[in-house]
Amino acid sequence: MDKQNKLAIIPLGGLGEIGKNMTVIRYEDDIVIIDSGLAFPEDDMLGIDLVIPDMTYLVENQDKIRAVVLTHGHEDHIGSLSYLLKQIDVPVYGTRLALGLVECRLKENNVANYKLNVIEAGDRVTFGPFEVGFIRVSHSMPDVVGMYFRTPVGTIVHTGDFKIDYTPADGKIMDLHKFAELGDEGVLVLMSDSTNAERPGFTKSERTVGIALDEAFRGAKDRVILATFASNVLRVQQAINSACKYGRKVAIIGRSMINVVSIATELGYLHVPEGMLIDIDDVKRYPGNQVLILTTGSQGEPMSALTRMAMNDHRKVEIYPGDTVIISATPIPGNEKSVSKTVDALLRLGANVIHEGSAGVHVSGHASQEELKLMLTLVRPQYLIPVHGEYRMLISHGKLGEELGIPKENIFIGTNGQVFEFTQEATGVIGKLAGKVTAGKVFVDGSGVGDVGNIVIRDRSKLSQDGVIIVVITLDKVRGCVVAGPDIVSRGFVYVRESGQLMVEAKQKVRQVLANCEAGKITEWAAIKGSVRDALGKFVYEKTHRSPMILPIIMEV
Amino acid sequence: MDKQNKLAIIPLGGLGEIGKNMTVIRYEDDIVIIDSGLAFPEDDMLGIDLVIPDMTYLVENQDKIRAVVLTHGHEDHIGSLSYLLKQIDVPVYGTRLALGLVECRLKENNVANYKLNVIEAGDRVTFGPFEVGFIRVSHSMPDVVGMYFRTPVGTIVHTGDFKIDYTPADGKIMDLHKFAELGDEGVLVLMSDSTNAERPGFTKSERTVGIALDEAFRGAKDRVILATFASNVLRVQQAINSACKYGRKVAIIGRSMINVVSIATELGYLHVPEGMLIDIDDVKRYPGNQVLILTTGSQGEPMSALTRMAMNDHRKVEIYPGDTVIISATPIPGNEKSVSKTVDALLRLGANVIHEGSAGVHVSGHASQEELKLMLTLVRPQYLIPVHGEYRMLISHGKLGEELGIPKENIFIGTNGQVFEFTQEATGVIGKLAGKVTAGKVFVDGSGVGDVGNIVIRDRSKLSQDGVIIVVITLDKVRGCVVAGPDIVSRGFVYVRESGQLMVEAKQKVRQVLANCEAGKITEWAAIKGSVRDALGKFVYEKTHRSPMILPIIMEV
Repeated sequence: MDKQNKLAIIPLGGLGEIGKNMTVIRYEDDIVIIDSGLAFPEDDMLGIDLVIPDMTYLVENQDKIRAVVLTHGHEDHIGSLSYLLKQIDVPVYGTRLALGLVECRLKENNVANYKLNVIEAGDRVTFGPFEVGFIRVSHSMPDVVGMYFRTPVGTIVHTGDFKIDYTPADGKIMDLHKFAELGDEGVLVLMSDSTNAERPGFTKSERTVGIALDEAFRGAKDRVILATFASNVLRVQQAINSACKYGRKVAIIGRSMINVVSIATELGYLHVPEGMLIDIDDVKRYPGNQVLILTTGSQGEPMSALTRMAMNDHRKVEIYPGDTVIISATPIPGNEKSVSKTVDALLRLGANVIHEGSAGVHVSGHASQEELKLMLTLVRPQYLIPVHGEYRMLISHGKLGEELGIPKENIFIGTNGQVFEFTQEATGVIGKLAGKVTAGKVFVDGSGVGDVGNIVIRDRSKLSQDGVIIVVITLDKVRGCVVAGPDIVSRGFVYVRESGQLMVEAKQKVRQVLANCEAGKITEWAAIKGSVRDALGKFVYEKTHRSPMILPIIMEV
Repeated sequence: MDKQNKLAIIPLGGLGEIGKNMTVIRYEDDIVIIDSGLAFPEDDMLGIDLVIPDMTYLVENQDKIRAVVLTHGHEDHIGSLSYLLKQIDVPVYGTRLALGLVECRLKENNVANYKLNVIEAGDRVTFGPFEVGFIRVSHSMPDVVGMYFRTPVGTIVHTGDFKIDYTPADGKIMDLHKFAELGDEGVLVLMSDSTNAERPGFTKSERTVGIALDEAFRGAKDRVILATFASNVLRVQQAINSACKYGRKVAIIGRSMINVVSIATELGYLHVPEGMLIDIDDVKRYPGNQVLILTTGSQGEPMSALTRMAMNDHRKVEIYPGDTVIISATPIPGNEKSVSKTVDALLRLGANVIHEGSAGVHVSGHASQEELKLMLTLVRPQYLIPVHGEYRMLISHGKLGEELGIPKENIFIGTNGQVFEFTQEATGVIGKLAGKVTAGKVFVDGSGVGDVGNIVIRDRSKLSQDGVIIVVITLDKVRGCVVAGPDIVSRGFVYVRESGQLMVEAKQKVRQVLANCEAGKITEWAAIKGSVRDALGKFVYEKTHRSPMILPIIMEV
């Protein structure tokens, strides 16, 4: 692109999805990156551990990158930072809590060289042509910021993940005045959180959860086991406050809960009264009504502490009748089934389970429609780019913008990789779509980054449906005739001990194919393999109505 | 068990799950079966097509079985009937619509001998010691019945799937009077639908959906595409009524929608005005605002008509900007993600998508708490067995019973296979748990019934995560040395073209293991295979942090 006096906004993740948020702000030869998140794999991404944004554009333009600025410390905003920093040397700016969580993750991933710079809400930092200011917002963790970029073309405001909480649990109220002030001065583009853009009304205050938790604690006659997102430090604090009030000691379990509690305590975000924490092994020394167990597993994740307890498979904690289990979260889309399985299993063990949204033990961390309207009204941007949401959420957010008077052509419903370009024209600043850069999903599987692609996933999918049948044949190098085999091995197809006859017939089928090949002077391996695959596949389908992967392997002696 | 004057209720499916409903009612040597349903596989049942109840108990007692009585024609109540009838010759009783759907399914499954007997709400039939009466209830399809069993020990009432709809779309109101009359006479056991036992209030009338659909039709400027459950004949009728009112022709697409519409029309449950149906190929001959397309796919099922349209992959229907797509259903738990993907894809194609619960285009077919309380109050049973629900729903239903004064010990929260036994004692009839019979899940995969068990599923799961590596070696029969190979083939592990070096090293690793075996005079195949599996598994994990299935295969020449 012709760079002259052009401002570009390029989302590399977070549009049309919940997850892997990452946005490039570019002016001529200077780039600042907002966030570097990850996404969790969808059901059809078999065996994949994480999904990160395609960073090709960043690697190609690495000499231009001045900084990564973070809105907050959630995985979908910081989770791919270690992959970015392994490729590009760039300083990172974020609040203390966000950087505390980042550092923990960088160490786990063996990233040695990093430059972390603490900023606070209210700070301003200059990166080349950009003056970046950080604005306090409310969300489901403390110390979260939105930001504004003053650029030669105009001001960009990015809300980050936010809700408007007039009674946040830490008393630190979102800086609505700053958004209003920016709006007064004139804002070119607003990028705003779309997660709850389909939800009417206002999102409830985190404070209401504190009240609901307190009520649950008061009513509990035996142990309380509370599962929530580890990163929701304010909720953890509220639970600890209630535990304190009712004379309960606190034991913590689950790797990420232990990590976050220790980081947040160390950094002063979490205050646990002296002598209140006990080791999980010591829980049994206290009467049930003096115990709170804080744990992970609110999403029914198979390996998490709560799920293991529910399945009676946890090394340290057993569930007893009379325990009160509070699941302080709503299932993330896709986790509904596993959460309800966990609930059912806990009920079977006799626990009292508090999990319904109606019980008030969870509220969202994202703004609903009325809050989004307030943000739009305060900032009154010339252009709106809904971010952080699946397509229908972006659309819904766009409609809210229209209702509030933003011209339809100034609302950009984008996809990852699209370049939104803003230039100063005689009539004012004009925004338009200006092509695309490389963007997409990169799969992380074990230690491999990007080595598992569609072909491998397709094979895994096929294997998962009907298994695999392997046919091994040894041929004589000179004469071309079969000297050993065919041997047939299967996995995930049928239970072989109970299907002996089928396997015998399958072998006969292959023998017949090989005899035909020999008779027909077919000696090319590819042709022989193809014939075996076709004939055996057809035979197996007729017999079982299944289509396992068929893998003929030929050896030569 | 000692049979003398004992009445037993034995659920073989439907407790602790939504799906595969089947209940045995036994008095001494006579058995009647209520429903014979199927369940759809859960996410971890890889490659499985259907799940049916374990019928061992029925096969063992087949000489005692007098009849199968059906509450209605949904798959979770009739879907395993063909598997039952292939094993046991027993007459089936149901309403005309239920039997119409049954017959269609039996033919598809090549069941030749069957005896279907039509009953109507209000009918009574005697099977040995049982007088069975059928009672009209409201649900999400027409012609649904609950039933009562008069037995020598007392009366059992089974609600079937029901809601209380004072304004059902077909005007046929549930026979509350009969439930009241039975309650007056005295009921021993009530088995009642627990699906919505966690939901407060009343379920809305199907009539309200008709109103919402009509509004959506009135507002649509181009084609209307409506996806709903094919079996919801009353909803289909309401859609057709609105289409008629606004001058739209109706095209039908999707196998089950075509089937059900034709069966329901033939049997007189569905009334389509003359000349209103058009072929899907003729849709293009009409202006958009004169077309309604009725389709399946309200659950985002990958192969369904609506999903294919959304993915731009349907042979006959393309989605255009301006189309109104109505998804008249809520996602069944587990389908949330696929439904929202479909919605997103439709929006990207420019369609106007109406799918929110708030739009009123769907209501549940099951009773909420206030309706369950009404049923409990009318029937006032001595014992309550909550049925048709996951564990937490049964528990919730049990609590409602307690609130209404049923003693806790008379509320049975059961699991499939449990025997609930009722005997006449001096003090009255006493119910208790009396052991278990064989019950469980049988997997149907292709044409195989029960031949895929846990081992096969575990293999499929492992294959789906990290794929498979196959190592083939040919040994000399006499000398025991390697004469060909090792050859390594992998699928679903890494993309081999980009991982050449890894595969070369893997081969070297195996060679080394084989050399060690030879040097150590290890010639047993099992030992060689074990060594290869261990060494290669370790090598691969170190290099990739993945654990593919490793399959060593040895051949001999």
